Amino acid sequence: MMGMLCQLRGYKRTEIHVYIGKYGTHVLFIPIIRVMGITYQQSGVDIDAANRLINRIKEPIKQTNRPEILTDVGGFAALATLPTKFQQPVLVCGTDGVGTKVELAIEHDRHEVIGQDLVAMCVNDILVYGAEPLLFLDYFATAKLDIAIAERVISGIADACKQVGCALAGGETAELPGLYAPNIYDLAGFCVGVVEKETLDVRKNVQVGDILLGLASDGPHSNGYSLIRALLREHKAPDSILEEMLTPTRLYGPAVLSIADSATGMAHITGGGLIENPPRMLTEDLAIELSPNVWEQPESFKWINAKGQLEPIEMLRTFNCGIGFVIATRAEDSAQVKSKLEGGGERVYNIGRVVASGARPSSDSIILTRE
Amino acid sequence: MMGMLCQLRGYKRTEIHVYIGKYGTHVLFIPIIRVMGITYQQSGVDIDAANRLINRIKEPIKQTNRPEILTDVGGFAALATLPTKFQQPVLVCGTDGVGTKVELAIEHDRHEVIGQDLVAMCVNDILVYGAEPLLFLDYFATAKLDIAIAERVISGIADACKQVGCALAGGETAELPGLYAPNIYDLAGFCVGVVEKETLDVRKNVQVGDILLGLASDGPHSNGYSLIRALLREHKAPDSILEEMLTPTRLYGPAVLSIADSATGMAHITGGGLIENPPRMLTEDLAIELSPNVWEQPESFKWINAKGQLEPIEMLRTFNCGIGFVIATRAEDSAQVKSKLEGGGERVYNIGRVVASGARPSSDSIILTRE
Repeated sequence: MMGMLCQLRGYKRTEIHVYIGKYGTHVLFIPIIRVMGITYQQSGVDIDAANRLINRIKEPIKQTNRPEILTDVGGFAALATLPTKFQQPVLVCGTDGVGTKVELAIEHDRHEVIGQDLVAMCVNDILVYGAEPLLFLDYFATAKLDIAIAERVISGIADACKQVGCALAGGETAELPGLYAPNIYDLAGFCVGVVEKETLDVRKNVQVGDILLGLASDGPHSNGYSLIRALLREHKAPDSILEEMLTPTRLYGPAVLSIADSATGMAHITGGGLIENPPRMLTEDLAIELSPNVWEQPESFKWINAKGQLEPIEMLRTFNCGIGFVIATRAEDSAQVKSKLEGGGERVYNIGRVVASGARPSSDSIILTRE
Repeated sequence: MMGMLCQLRGYKRTEIHVYIGKYGTHVLFIPIIRVMGITYQQSGVDIDAANRLINRIKEPIKQTNRPEILTDVGGFAALATLPTKFQQPVLVCGTDGVGTKVELAIEHDRHEVIGQDLVAMCVNDILVYGAEPLLFLDYFATAKLDIAIAERVISGIADACKQVGCALAGGETAELPGLYAPNIYDLAGFCVGVVEKETLDVRKNVQVGDILLGLASDGPHSNGYSLIRALLREHKAPDSILEEMLTPTRLYGPAVLSIADSATGMAHITGGGLIENPPRMLTEDLAIELSPNVWEQPESFKWINAKGQLEPIEMLRTFNCGIGFVIATRAEDSAQVKSKLEGGGERVYNIGRVVASGARPSSDSIILTRE
């Protein structure tokens, strides 16, 4: 019987659904299970702490609200109308995680950065289509819910959503002791954006001679962290390098949307780095001539390169190497687009141009094709 | 140097983005990393196996396609227009996981059931609003990708999407060795549905006298599995009971949508069971009188009750106890709605009615209120 009790004391599953509710509050739903006289609270979950979590994340989430988000009593799902300005709205939906960067953030007690990584990994993907981010949902799963950590993570998600004008309309928090390593959590994000169909059709017209503008990254963002962590286990990195590795993925949102109408193609530099992502905007008859020496790589990439002794092409295939987002424009528009992006706070480099497939590289450039 | 090599041999992150691509094929993206002469393939990832995975999941995914899904070269995100029949479309977006049921499925090598659980947990939530499921995205994260298992899981997701008429428009597969326990994976799902704004406004009008119809569940679905697994560690369950516990969450999709116009309120019986979910359709002046003895509980719940010795109210708070979805209708419509649902393959019970808050229960009923 005691064995039974012990087993059942181990039973816990917390489900927290945070939805923007009818009265501007957020429903936090924790089933309180009473098993053989042992309540859920006695078995270790601190309901007061959970209530503190609601109170703390309520305000940052509320700050992300948009007029399109509809309110509902039950909170089974997030409801939204479409922004009225769209004639023929196209939904652009993305999902992503943050990879093993979450482990680095956990190791260094930097739970407030990883929320922006999550939002940026999803939202930067939909920006490629010129889509305006409308709403975001998160999935947060952990072995054992630590309220203080959850607050920092979810507040970080909310702050990043606010920066890109996207409502944090819901989320799922799951406590799954058997699935996750102790003290570890994983995150998945889901984003819905909207774009005008006509604009979307017009944008896919990259052609030979288009200029590629590269927007500076803030560090490795959320890619290549298994390699980074392998190197960090062998070498102590200077504080400034580590700081760059812990800097969240840059939110290109407002700046990129301001020039989306002048872009003929866009690419988020994510897994596959500068080698594999820019060609994703191409049709098969085109290639990209990339000049990888025209911008200076942030210090963290120099450190990774020195310690990892990667071949240059492998550096470019694994990391953004200083360029987090790429925009193609007609040559005649490029100066204006660059200046507008700079006005929006971006550092912008002319990193290459679109060429015919089969073109030969110069001595300081490489040719990228779809593969 | 060898230490370095060993460290770097351990580096792997597979990212597989499956999107419906331009030519009806699906982009599977695996960065091949060459570090100090060691290619990714040499370090353990079987590219041929990955290609087999693409070929195997291509067909089930293709089967879920809908005319609204737009094709794109780059595959950074999933694109969809809205079904043309909607005048004022409202998006209904949900996210969920499957909790620790995934562990039971893994233990019993039943990877093909858990995909339907994932889809049903998300889609049944949006059905509550009468929303037509449009597209689904999945997040599949594991310590080490097993191609054969991934195929079974993703095919299961695709099959369930097809059953509810929802496009499996994309997904993220991440290999994260440090985050997950060995041989374990977790799943998160994300669903976008659409409903006419006017219909949504009309539906929220539950009133005193409405009849509650309960749709039979196929077993515990995806809730209460931490408790179920605790009991299974102490007691051997008969095969038929275990089979019920491994039966996927029922997809209420087509049947519920066929009667959505006659529903005054709906509830998916998920975490919180029959105690906490039905009241989510109520305004504060209303309550529900539930008659928990009018249907026979499936065998698995009797077994759980016998072995767990839970108080009846805790059984109802933890499990669906045989009722997976609840629909409120006007009393005069209830016979027709019931018959239509039965025509759609559902087993339906009159499980209670809507009463004024403050009403007293009878000897064989309980009163449920919003908390």
